Amino acid sequence: MENLSVGQYDLVYNAFSFGFATLAAATIFFWLGRSQVTARYKTALTITGLVTFIAAYHYFRIFESWSDAYVYVDGTIQATGTPFNDAYRYVDWLLTVPLLLIELILVMGLSRSETLSRGTRLGVLAALMIALGYPGEIASATSGRWLWGGLAMIPFLWIIYELFVGLSKSIEGQPEDSRGLIKMARNVTVASWAFYPVVYFAGAIGLGDASSDVIIQVGYTIADIIAKAGFGILIFLIAVRKSHYEQENETLTVPIK
Amino acid sequence: MENLSVGQYDLVYNAFSFGFATLAAATIFFWLGRSQVTARYKTALTITGLVTFIAAYHYFRIFESWSDAYVYVDGTIQATGTPFNDAYRYVDWLLTVPLLLIELILVMGLSRSETLSRGTRLGVLAALMIALGYPGEIASATSGRWLWGGLAMIPFLWIIYELFVGLSKSIEGQPEDSRGLIKMARNVTVASWAFYPVVYFAGAIGLGDASSDVIIQVGYTIADIIAKAGFGILIFLIAVRKSHYEQENETLTVPIK
Repeated sequence: MENLSVGQYDLVYNAFSFGFATLAAATIFFWLGRSQVTARYKTALTITGLVTFIAAYHYFRIFESWSDAYVYVDGTIQATGTPFNDAYRYVDWLLTVPLLLIELILVMGLSRSETLSRGTRLGVLAALMIALGYPGEIASATSGRWLWGGLAMIPFLWIIYELFVGLSKSIEGQPEDSRGLIKMARNVTVASWAFYPVVYFAGAIGLGDASSDVIIQVGYTIADIIAKAGFGILIFLIAVRKSHYEQENETLTVPIK
Repeated sequence: MENLSVGQYDLVYNAFSFGFATLAAATIFFWLGRSQVTARYKTALTITGLVTFIAAYHYFRIFESWSDAYVYVDGTIQATGTPFNDAYRYVDWLLTVPLLLIELILVMGLSRSETLSRGTRLGVLAALMIALGYPGEIASATSGRWLWGGLAMIPFLWIIYELFVGLSKSIEGQPEDSRGLIKMARNVTVASWAFYPVVYFAGAIGLGDASSDVIIQVGYTIADIIAKAGFGILIFLIAVRKSHYEQENETLTVPIK
């Protein structure tokens, strides 16, 4: 990114700061929201806030790394020699992507054994997907990016299958009131995640100049905000609705007991 | 570590940042989880979070120390002359390892006298183990590492004896529902701790080049995450299950009283 213009540098700089502010604010929203749901959904909101907390930390680091990598010289932007550390994204995803899927499972309030088996399977698949993607991201040859990216697509497609086929029965068993929101949360997951391979393979077809790098950085930031804070708001709404639903039904059944 | 490559430097750098993010997130998870357990298990979760909090602090320091010890010069990594401070690990273990054993004792909800006697004995043994290991870590001669390492193995083996023989009766007295998890927590403790002497004695047999140092730093990081955050999740699950179990049994016995 030697030919970065001042405008391009500033755009990424501000996008990273925006990412940090949004994710940090979302974190506090989710953790404060814990007091508004029943015990059953508290862990879901704890983890929703953990995802945005971990992401906020990484946006803070990415922002610092971006600042350290460039310097203003006579009205232009010059590289300082300290490389921009893009690996923060992978470190972040390795933690947050499995947790995002676990959030979705937890808010469904399934049985203990189903929560454990589905959560473990989706969590492991997600971690595998990220771990397989990384060698391609740092590969010097384009072929490496295609190879590892292709391998990472296997767990990715498996996750989509699990979400649409494996979970469909469990989703139908949810209270009518929150079923639509749960489907929306699942669709947001898949739609926002679909953006990442697009950016990833954009690198493989040779879009490696300054302006495409800027698009990648800003694009990843927007995708992260939607997939973590936006998705988290849906989880919060589901947890609140289901808490109300269960409290109402509990109250109703007490006199019958 | 004079011949550290950029890739090796970056790997350790990212592992330390990953360690910090994971342990900080785990801390908040455990402390928020306190509201989901009964009074009896709140201290166990407080201490579980203290362990990851202390470790997160030390990973932050280790990360900073690593950054300060090296600099990018013309695309290579050069030592700055400020040494990397590995002693943070021992300071951390001196505090966290006794606390980890106390966590396990607390979550078992034993009698007050048994908690005190077992907690004290295991805590003192753990502190002794770390204190004996340190002179070997900084010894200039290999013989020093063997001597002090050998001495540290005495409390280490005693701890294992306490966990497998001393605690076995108390574990059998736990509710069936959480007995398996408690055994798993004990096994995770022993399995993850077994990694540390391997790394320690690897230093004694002369594996002191850059790549083995990288393996040691990344290995310690993974072991710390499993022994502190992973173990903590088991403690959390045990505390939640036992809280449910005791609440249910209390409700059932109320009308009989």
